[in-house]
Amino acid sequence: MGGLTAFRCRACDAVHPFLEGRWRCDCGGLLDLDFAPALDPARLSGAVPTLWRYRTALPLPKEADVVSLGEGFTPLTPARLDGVDVWLKQDHLFPSGSYKDRGASLLIGYARALGVDAVVEDSSGNAGSAMAAYSAAAGLACTVYVPESASPGKLVQMAAYGAGVVRVPGSREATALAVREAAAQSFYASHVWHPLFTHGVKTVAYELWEQLGRRAPETVVVPAGNGSLLLGVDLGFRELVRLGLAARRPRLIAVQAANCAPLHAAFVAGAAETTPFPSTVTVAEGVAIADPARGAQMLAAIRTGGGSVLAVSEAEIGDALRLLHRRGFYVEPTSAVAVAGLRRHFREGPLTDRPVAILTGHGLKATDRIASLG
Amino acid sequence: MGGLTAFRCRACDAVHPFLEGRWRCDCGGLLDLDFAPALDPARLSGAVPTLWRYRTALPLPKEADVVSLGEGFTPLTPARLDGVDVWLKQDHLFPSGSYKDRGASLLIGYARALGVDAVVEDSSGNAGSAMAAYSAAAGLACTVYVPESASPGKLVQMAAYGAGVVRVPGSREATALAVREAAAQSFYASHVWHPLFTHGVKTVAYELWEQLGRRAPETVVVPAGNGSLLLGVDLGFRELVRLGLAARRPRLIAVQAANCAPLHAAFVAGAAETTPFPSTVTVAEGVAIADPARGAQMLAAIRTGGGSVLAVSEAEIGDALRLLHRRGFYVEPTSAVAVAGLRRHFREGPLTDRPVAILTGHGLKATDRIASLG
Repeated sequence: MGGLTAFRCRACDAVHPFLEGRWRCDCGGLLDLDFAPALDPARLSGAVPTLWRYRTALPLPKEADVVSLGEGFTPLTPARLDGVDVWLKQDHLFPSGSYKDRGASLLIGYARALGVDAVVEDSSGNAGSAMAAYSAAAGLACTVYVPESASPGKLVQMAAYGAGVVRVPGSREATALAVREAAAQSFYASHVWHPLFTHGVKTVAYELWEQLGRRAPETVVVPAGNGSLLLGVDLGFRELVRLGLAARRPRLIAVQAANCAPLHAAFVAGAAETTPFPSTVTVAEGVAIADPARGAQMLAAIRTGGGSVLAVSEAEIGDALRLLHRRGFYVEPTSAVAVAGLRRHFREGPLTDRPVAILTGHGLKATDRIASLG
Repeated sequence: MGGLTAFRCRACDAVHPFLEGRWRCDCGGLLDLDFAPALDPARLSGAVPTLWRYRTALPLPKEADVVSLGEGFTPLTPARLDGVDVWLKQDHLFPSGSYKDRGASLLIGYARALGVDAVVEDSSGNAGSAMAAYSAAAGLACTVYVPESASPGKLVQMAAYGAGVVRVPGSREATALAVREAAAQSFYASHVWHPLFTHGVKTVAYELWEQLGRRAPETVVVPAGNGSLLLGVDLGFRELVRLGLAARRPRLIAVQAANCAPLHAAFVAGAAETTPFPSTVTVAEGVAIADPARGAQMLAAIRTGGGSVLAVSEAEIGDALRLLHRRGFYVEPTSAVAVAGLRRHFREGPLTDRPVAILTGHGLKATDRIASLG
């Protein structure tokens, strides 16, 4: 891997050693990673078609084994939507069924390199399944904390991987408190807090760069909830620019369900921080996050790249979902949020480059919701 | 593509033109395709990581557009089971969630090249979803005939792709009769009858050959029901040998659920044909075929390659499924049939080469069955 230093607190600037398995600063602040990736483009042509082709750009100790289920280098597929040519990055085609495998593969590999034998995570959705999958592959014990209200169907996959599932009564916040208590004894493999997760997700940017003929696209459209995809894409392209491999970062368009749109509200208000949104009732469960921990970071990433935030209605999400399915892309409703935003984007004016939308979760994860949408 | 001639009847040897969209001979016999593939190994290193890297080995008119959702070149992943090193070919990682996308991609591309605008198929499972997906991608109308007893959950994916679903009262045979009646007006995109489907599936053999460093493995283990995977693997390796690219065909081990094992019964009896099996009650729905149309062809493929047929119990299937899940491979029970057979194979004696088992369908297709197995 490239040059690696340490974790750095976003709040107080404190520095913590890389091989200390912490997930936040002593001050409670979010961590980033000071890390300089390396990449030799000449070595890519014969490389394995997984995200591990970018191993030198990933912060994992050189001697560490990777924990891999063959993830990444997902198809970038042309499609014509509303008469406009676009690229769809099929990041739902992962072993556990979502792009979260990118982050889980790296984060669990890091945990194993630290000698950890048990991890905890809180998620009732795709992140929990991804962490359970890679923990299984790595031989680590995994416990996922979920709100009591989580539907049993979503927990079948985690349990099948051998993860313990702890149902926490009360609010989503109660679940977050429970996992933090557990995190005092175990490694907290948080897809929101842990910077290693974002470094795994950034590989989607490297793949887009390579699949488009070693250049950055002008526009990338992503669904946004906790922001792990948005921040991963942003980090990847910033690194590619710093490495001299891309001329500029793409404009990032983050799309939220209007029914749960704290990022959109802050963006249009010109605020530097998100504030809790009063509702989370949307078919796009994967982005139903009322109070994202990294809201300020997401806003900064969007603004400095000249991007924007859109909020789309439930009807627009349903329409975009049907459109995707009728083109052969079987994704869950959260993925349709990005495409609903992309269709808004079409109407804003002529495009000078074919935009990319990232599909995030497999439709097979959402049979009941898809059936109910008809 | 390579040299291409015509369809040839397995029963009466009649020859039919390639660009006639028929699925069987006038005599009622099954068709094969007389086709000589071409492959230039020197061109593979920079080729796209999908099954279309083998386009010159696929029987599609040169001028035809391919119908692609980015399928194929699935991961070949090392795993250690019962202390034995094996390869797992993750052929569940396809757009529609099963390896049947290999056959559907080619067969629907062929249908479109013929100028067909509507296809019919009979399947309540993975083949129906695959055909619906590629019909959607190609802009063809698709109607899938299913037995009335098919669970509604399995039909959600087909309907989402825009396929018509016709529920036929009565037996599985009644469904087969209904689709054949429809096939008089429409293109019958049968995953069992149509030789183009097998030619799509054969790409799994090309991938194994390439992923193993351009050689054939000694042993490939597959679940067997209708035999589309078995016959595809056999065809692919026969072609690779004929092309001078592999020294010999692998030994094929076909595995059936003991509860529905017509191939196994015929194999151990030394019979040349299968006869209808009295039961189809197994958790491995994808191979619950009592009377496979290509039974004789399957038996011949296994015997001439020095292979064998195993029958595994429901308990062995359940155990193999849990083992796969606990290693991070989230597959449906039908995939576990192959691995249950592989574990039997371990016990028969020392291995001289690392065997390959092919995983066939995603676990997300089988949430209810996986939940019930615990």
